[in-house]
Amino acid sequence: MEDWRIRVGKNVRRLREDRGLTQERIAFDAKIDLTYLGGIERGKRNPSLLVMVRISDALGVAVTELVA
Amino acid sequence: MEDWRIRVGKNVRRLREDRGLTQERIAFDAKIDLTYLGGIERGKRNPSLLVMVRISDALGVAVTELVA
Repeated sequence: MEDWRIRVGKNVRRLREDRGLTQERIAFDAKIDLTYLGGIERGKRNPSLLVMVRISDALGVAVTELVA
Repeated sequence: MEDWRIRVGKNVRRLREDRGLTQERIAFDAKIDLTYLGGIERGKRNPSLLVMVRISDALGVAVTELVA
């Protein structure tokens, strides 16, 4: 089975790096712990809807882009 | 602020009813508690990524449709 945690993590990392933003900046703006964001990017975490919304807001993208 | 829990809940209910499927069926297929699915549809719950993936699989739609 495809692991959606990995897919979402890769999307977050790609979208963040495309924008030249640091993990620190996104974690701060999304009000999540830096280590938690790192875990999401590595596909180790199963973020909730509202955390994904805060991350997408911090990235300036639609939530759909995180699960694309 | 828009409440994404309500938006996702409405999407789940609409997609489910469009397909003529019961909450019982989706809860069973998605391996989640029936009362939990009801809470999601009413916008009272903050489902995780993997729960949303299981619900979208049970509905036969892409995950993006839940957060559209």
